Order: sequence, then C-alpha cells, then structure tokens
Amino acid sequence: MADKDEIRPNVHDSLRRVSELLRKHELVEGLVHRQQGPRQELVENLVHKLHLVELQKLLDAQHPADVAYILESLPLEERLVVWDLVKAEREGEILLEVSDAVRETLIANMDEHELVAAAEQLDTDEIADLAPDLPREVIQDVFRSLSPEEREQLRSAMSYPEDTVGALMDFDMISIRDDVTVEVVLRYLRRLDEMPDHTDQLFVVDHAGKLKGLLPVNRLLVTAPGTPVATVMQPDFFKLHPQEKAQDASGAFERYDLVSAPVVDDGGRLVGRVTVNAVMDYIREETDSDLLSAGGLREDEDLFASVWSSVRNRWAWLAVNLVTAFIASRVIGLFEGSIARLVALAALMPIIAGISGNSGNQTITFIVRALALGQITPENARKLFAKEIGVSALNGLIWGGVVGLFAFLIYHNWQLGVVMAGAMMLSLMLAAVMGVAIPLTLQKFGRDPAIGSSVLITAITDSGGFFIFLGLATVFLV
Amino acid sequence: MADKDEIRPNVHDSLRRVSELLRKHELVEGLVHRQQGPRQELVENLVHKLHLVELQKLLDAQHPADVAYILESLPLEERLVVWDLVKAEREGEILLEVSDAVRETLIANMDEHELVAAAEQLDTDEIADLAPDLPREVIQDVFRSLSPEEREQLRSAMSYPEDTVGALMDFDMISIRDDVTVEVVLRYLRRLDEMPDHTDQLFVVDHAGKLKGLLPVNRLLVTAPGTPVATVMQPDFFKLHPQEKAQDASGAFERYDLVSAPVVDDGGRLVGRVTVNAVMDYIREETDSDLLSAGGLREDEDLFASVWSSVRNRWAWLAVNLVTAFIASRVIGLFEGSIARLVALAALMPIIAGISGNSGNQTITFIVRALALGQITPENARKLFAKEIGVSALNGLIWGGVVGLFAFLIYHNWQLGVVMAGAMMLSLMLAAVMGVAIPLTLQKFGRDPAIGSSVLITAITDSGGFFIFLGLATVFLV
Repeated sequence: MADKDEIRPNVHDSLRRVSELLRKHELVEGLVHRQQGPRQELVENLVHKLHLVELQKLLDAQHPADVAYILESLPLEERLVVWDLVKAEREGEILLEVSDAVRETLIANMDEHELVAAAEQLDTDEIADLAPDLPREVIQDVFRSLSPEEREQLRSAMSYPEDTVGALMDFDMISIRDDVTVEVVLRYLRRLDEMPDHTDQLFVVDHAGKLKGLLPVNRLLVTAPGTPVATVMQPDFFKLHPQEKAQDASGAFERYDLVSAPVVDDGGRLVGRVTVNAVMDYIREETDSDLLSAGGLREDEDLFASVWSSVRNRWAWLAVNLVTAFIASRVIGLFEGSIARLVALAALMPIIAGISGNSGNQTITFIVRALALGQITPENARKLFAKEIGVSALNGLIWGGVVGLFAFLIYHNWQLGVVMAGAMMLSLMLAAVMGVAIPLTLQKFGRDPAIGSSVLITAITDSGGFFIFLGLATVFLV
Repeated sequence: MADKDEIRPNVHDSLRRVSELLRKHELVEGLVHRQQGPRQELVENLVHKLHLVELQKLLDAQHPADVAYILESLPLEERLVVWDLVKAEREGEILLEVSDAVRETLIANMDEHELVAAAEQLDTDEIADLAPDLPREVIQDVFRSLSPEEREQLRSAMSYPEDTVGALMDFDMISIRDDVTVEVVLRYLRRLDEMPDHTDQLFVVDHAGKLKGLLPVNRLLVTAPGTPVATVMQPDFFKLHPQEKAQDASGAFERYDLVSAPVVDDGGRLVGRVTVNAVMDYIREETDSDLLSAGGLREDEDLFASVWSSVRNRWAWLAVNLVTAFIASRVIGLFEGSIARLVALAALMPIIAGISGNSGNQTITFIVRALALGQITPENARKLFAKEIGVSALNGLIWGGVVGLFAFLIYHNWQLGVVMAGAMMLSLMLAAVMGVAIPLTLQKFGRDPAIGSSVLITAITDSGGFFIFLGLATVFLV
C-alpha cells in the first residue's frame, strides 16, 4: 500500500522488519513445540534467540515515538513479545507515546516493580500524565522516591483537570533573576550540561518568584555581556494561568507562533511553562476525539481490541439511533392508511428524508466550525439564519424540481410530482432552521455543539421529512 | 455565549468593541443622510471621524492574527470599513492570516497599487503563499522589485505543489561554515540585530553549501568559545526534501518534537527550513478540510458568503446523495406489491437501513483513522475483517432482538418480528464488510479514504438494507 509508506517512511520499514522477525520467531516456536528432539531443540533455540537479538537491536535504534507506533500496529500477542524486548529505562517514555487503549494493554502486562521503575525515569509532569492508568500502589511508591520539590510538582500537576493549561504544563523551565547581567546568565548556562528541550526563552523573576519578563535565548546571543537582564528582557509578554482552558492556550500558540509560554499563578509567580510540542499533542488528541465522537465511537479503539470491547465502545450511538429510528417508524405508522392506498409513497419517502438530512448536516458542519472559531455573535446569528434559509429555499427549488420530475416520470402522476417538490422544499427549510438552531442551543446550554448535533438533525429530518411528505400526500392526494 | 469568550479571551473583547464602534458609525452615517443641514452635518462628521479614529487605534494595537479574526467575523460591508482602516504596511501579514474565502473578498476590494505594496512587505515564501490569489500583473510588479536572490527563492517556493515540504518551507535560516570556532559564530550573531523567529538551531554547511550538521542555539550557549563548530555540531540529523509530502513533515515534527528542520536538495545542499508554526498551520488546514469534506462542503465558506456561492459550494454532495436516494427508492419500488399487501413493511424498513448505516459509518471512521496512521498492513487486514464481522454479528444479535421485539409489539405478528431480526443481522454484517472494504479499496486505488467513504457506505446500507428486509419479507411473509 503505497500511501502508508509515504506517511512514515522510516518507521514503516521498521514495522515491516519487526513483523518479519516476529514471523520467523513464531515459526521457530512452532517447530520447537512439534519436534522435541534435544539436539533439534538446541539449534532452533539458537535461531530463535538470534531473531530476538536482532529485533532488540532494531528496537533500540528507534525513537520512542516510533517504538510506540510499532507497538500500536501489532496484534496483542506480538505486541507483548516486542514490549518484553524494550529496555527497562525506555519503557516510561514509550508508555507516554502510545495511545490510551494500547497503554492499558501494556500496563496490564507489567508487574508493580516494572511500573515503578518505568515511572521513575520520567519528569514529574510526565508521571502526572501516566498516573490515571497506574495502580494506586505504584503511584505511592513513585511518590516516595521523589524529592520534596518534585512531590510538590507532581501534586500540582495531578490537581488540574485534563483540558486545562495545568495539565499541559511542564516544570523544565530556566528562570533567572532580574538583578543580574547577561554575563552572569551566560556563565550560569554554561554550567548546565544542556538546556531543556524547547528552551527558546528564559523566565526573569524577582526575589519573590514573580515573573517580571522574558529573555529570548536568541536575544541573549546578540546582546553585549555587560547589559543588565532587566534592560534587555521583554517586560510585556503573553502568559497563561493553570486553570485556563487548554484550548485557549493552543489557540494562542497557533495565532502568535509561540514555542513556549510561561504559566503563572494568581499572584503572578512563575509555576511552569507550556511548550509547542505539548500543544501539538493536545491538538492531535482533540482532533482525534472529535473525529471519533462524530462517528459515534466513545473512545480511541485499539486496532486489535476484542469484539466485546468494540461492541461496548460503540453501543451508545447505536442505541440513540435506534430510538430515533423507532420514532421515525411510528411517524410513518400514522400514515399507513395513505400508503396502503398509494404505495408509491413508501418508495419516495426516503428520498425526502435523505436529502434534507444531508443538507441539514452541511449546515451543522458550517455552524459548528464557526462556533469553534468563536465567530458567531448574537448580532450575526440572525443574518446566518436568514442566509441558511435562503440557501435551503434555493436548494428546495432546484432539488424539489428534480425529485418532483423523478416522481412524475416513474409514476406518471403529476399531482404526486407536485407534492414531492413541495415536501422537498419544506423539509430542506426545516433542516436549515434546525441546522442553525441545534448547535446554537447546545452551545447556549454549555454543551459541545460538535457532539450530538448530527444525531439530532438526522432524527428531526427523518421524522420531519416523513411527516411533511406523507402529510401533504394525505391531504392532497389520497 | 460563554464558551466563545473562553476561546479567544482578548480578541473577542476587541471584536465586540469593533462591532460597537461600527454600529455608532453606521448610525451617524444614517443621520447625516437624513438631516442635510450644513451645521448638523459638520457635527456628525466630527463624531463619525472620532469613532473611526478610535477604531483605527484599536486595530493598530492588535496582533495581525487577531485583526484577521475580526475581519473574518464581520459581514462584508463592515469588513471592508475595517479593512480600509488597517495600516498599509500591515496588510500583507493580515492577508496571510485570513481564511481563503475572506482573503478573496479583501483582495477584490484592493487596487493593483495597494496589492503590490502589501506583497512587498512580505518574505518571499509568504509572497508565494499569497500568489495564487493575486492578479498576474501584481505578481509581475512584485517580482521586478525583488533582488536576484529573492527572485530565485520566490520562483523555487512557487514551484512546489501545495501539499509538499517545499510549500511549507521558508528561507529565514542562519547557516554557518563548518571550519570556524564557536567564538566566530557568536561574533557573527552579535552583528545581527535579531535572529529570525524559531531559530532553535543553526545549519552548518561546507564551502559548497552542503549541509554537514546542526548546531542547536542552546548548545552554543553552553560551549566554550574556542571549540570548533565541527566538533560541537550534531552530524546525524533529521532532514527534509522539498518534494516530500507535507504530511510526512508534520508527522515527524509531532513524533520528534521539532521546532525547525532543514530542507536539502538531492545534492544535500541546504535550500530552506521548515518551522513548527508552518506545520501547525498546515495541520489546522488539513483538519479543517477533512471536517468540511466529511460534511460535503467543497471548501471553506465565508461566514457571510452570498446564498448563491453557498449553494454552489454544497451542491455536489447533495447531487451525489440524490442519485443514491433514487437508487434506494427504486429498490423499494421493486417490492411495492409486498408493501401494498403488508403496509407495516413501509414503516419498519427505515429502521434497518438507518441502524446499519450508522454501524457501517462507525467501522469506516475506525478504519480510515487506522489507515491515516499507516497501521493497516496486508497481514492484519484479514484480522480486522474478522473482528468487524464479529462485532457486527454480536450487534446483530443484540439489536436484531430489540427491533424484532419492537416489530412484534407494534404489529402483533411474530413472523414479522423474526424477519425483522434476521434482516437487521444481515444488514449489519453487510455494513461491516463494506465498512472495511470501501476505505481499503479507495486507498488501494490511490484515493483519499476519508473522502467519499461515508457516502458510499450509506448508499450501500440504504439500498442493501431495504433489499434485504423487503426481500426476506416477500419470501417468508407475503
């Protein structure tokens, strides 16, 4: 499959190689089980080990994110063989990179001792990210191994809900005092072996820890060493608060092209920083969860999840749709007499419901997107209603004409064609009004308009479309 | 609306203030037109100007991305009033930030001279981004104003298709020679007024311009000045090629947490760099276009687009759905005789089609996502088929039982209930098989599986669901 290779050129080669080695390994295992002669066994065991050694070498050479990708792409049994070969000191990083569903399968196969060892390799903000998936005793053990300062960080990182700035934040920032010179700062930095990733700026604080300004690393390089920090720092700067929504932070990173941003508490004291890589991960997760919930999957599904866990992941959506389908069915039931007299109605009614459902979903997509961008105000909401109704009226003329003609051509009944065209027009207008109203209403009541809007509009256009068409037909035709 | 304020706290205040000032401005215009007394006019004109001055001050204080946001949120007429108040030297940056649809409305209202002036404020890679929307003469004028080196850059940037690394790349990199010391580099940097944004590393090249290594700025700070660059640089590094897919680059930035990456030509010579902000913009646009195409909108729609342009943007999807609805209608038409004899079939058939459509779409969502991550190989495709069929069989038992019971309770006809349950089971299995097969087939033929899969599965589950249910009913009941 060509496209896939293009997406992850190197890592996909690795995945193919891993699969190959695993297949050889399985083959050998099979042979060993069948042929129990001691000499044969010895040879096979040797080959077996050679494969695993090669596999381990291959894994050691991969970036943790790439090992995570390989693990996600393997069925459970093979995944655990590979996981056993991963060096203990890399397990923590890799656990951070894999998807939630796959992480559960890996953690379920590690003992307490291994988990503690893996977690201890990580920074406190990373431990906080893993914590929800770890057994209570493991967290307690890890906690005991930390310094008092780290314990404080871990406690603070774990105290913020998932979608806040506090959950995105790390503690790897370099802060400097505002009453020193650039030379002192440079000397201090040279004493560090290396600077944390994504250090594009240093945070300038006063003696009380209050953030006074930012000193971009690049400015540090082009400034004369004797200059006081206070004169070269940026005193006006963008800052975040731990309680703010993660979505705000990600919007700001996108708009202002940031690499890192300071996080301060209510007293203005520096408590951490957010970096662009945490923001990118957040955006990816958000996009994923929108995609999944739009399809009615409750959460990320392991590619090789059991049938039973997949059924559980998907049942809620199907149940809701079953209820709406039952309602639509009862609406049709109201008109069974009309259908019995003019059976063409049964064949034509799904057209009305289908087209208005699609049109309503287009309106929803458009409005949900504008809401997400914050572009809908009470003033322009009225204009949007007017516009969508206009669009649906024009669509009603066009598509109403087409479906009316279709009905006439098939059934040679011009009255049926006219009723069909009229029903199409009315259903499309219903879809337009509800397509604007549903997301605005969900938003007003503090619900996410991206979730549920589509189910609601389809329910309304189905039942409404059937009712309008069969109702008009009953009045004018039967 | 609470949520919106949280998304863009400051910029939304600005938008509200802009709307207020615009309303006052319109009010005054209205007064002036009605009361033509010269004294009255004078006073009103003064107030009028005061509002616009205040508005201009407000706009000047905003980040270009925030002005872009305000422009996108205003109806066309008000948008152009605001656009007239934007300082000429900021127009270029702001044009870069607005959405494609809004950019068109702004450019349509600028004369050639203004456009040339706006474009000349930009870097060559940014001009290349605007170029598709600019009139030919404007590009020629801009081209003439560039230095030979810049012309070469512009030509190169414009030569790459939109979804390649070449289109993401900029030319703002600092390259240094490999045969100097860190001290020489530091002295060179101090002569620059400031370093380009997102300069987290310098690119080390030999005398022929070939990229030999990367020198992280942070490492520069912690290295003794006498050290030769060649010994402190990273000789193994991640690099991109201009022809590579932008999606590859964005995957690498996410996986490896990059801030910038070098772009080299086939000869290994440094030609540009890609930065994380360009990658974030790319990801946002990709996500947006996926979202829009999933809803059947061809492109980004201006919130205040005319009814006619909205109809054009949405018609293709509706036309496709009309065709599939006609087919489904004809499938029902085949069984009109059965429906006439047992009219309950008409009321029950949408349940089968609806539920299996939803279930098929869940499978599609899941498979499309796994394909996008490159996690489906020929080996595991078979396992996925088996899993999805298992899920659908289990769902068939559960939901088939529920709908069968529903049919029995409403119509007191147990045979009808059994047919209903059987049809549900078969339709769900059809949905599962097609839900895996459709995206895999689209991918195989080089099409994007995210586009069109959903329409196809719904077409198949509609017609298929009707056929299965009405067919079974005709055989066993009528």
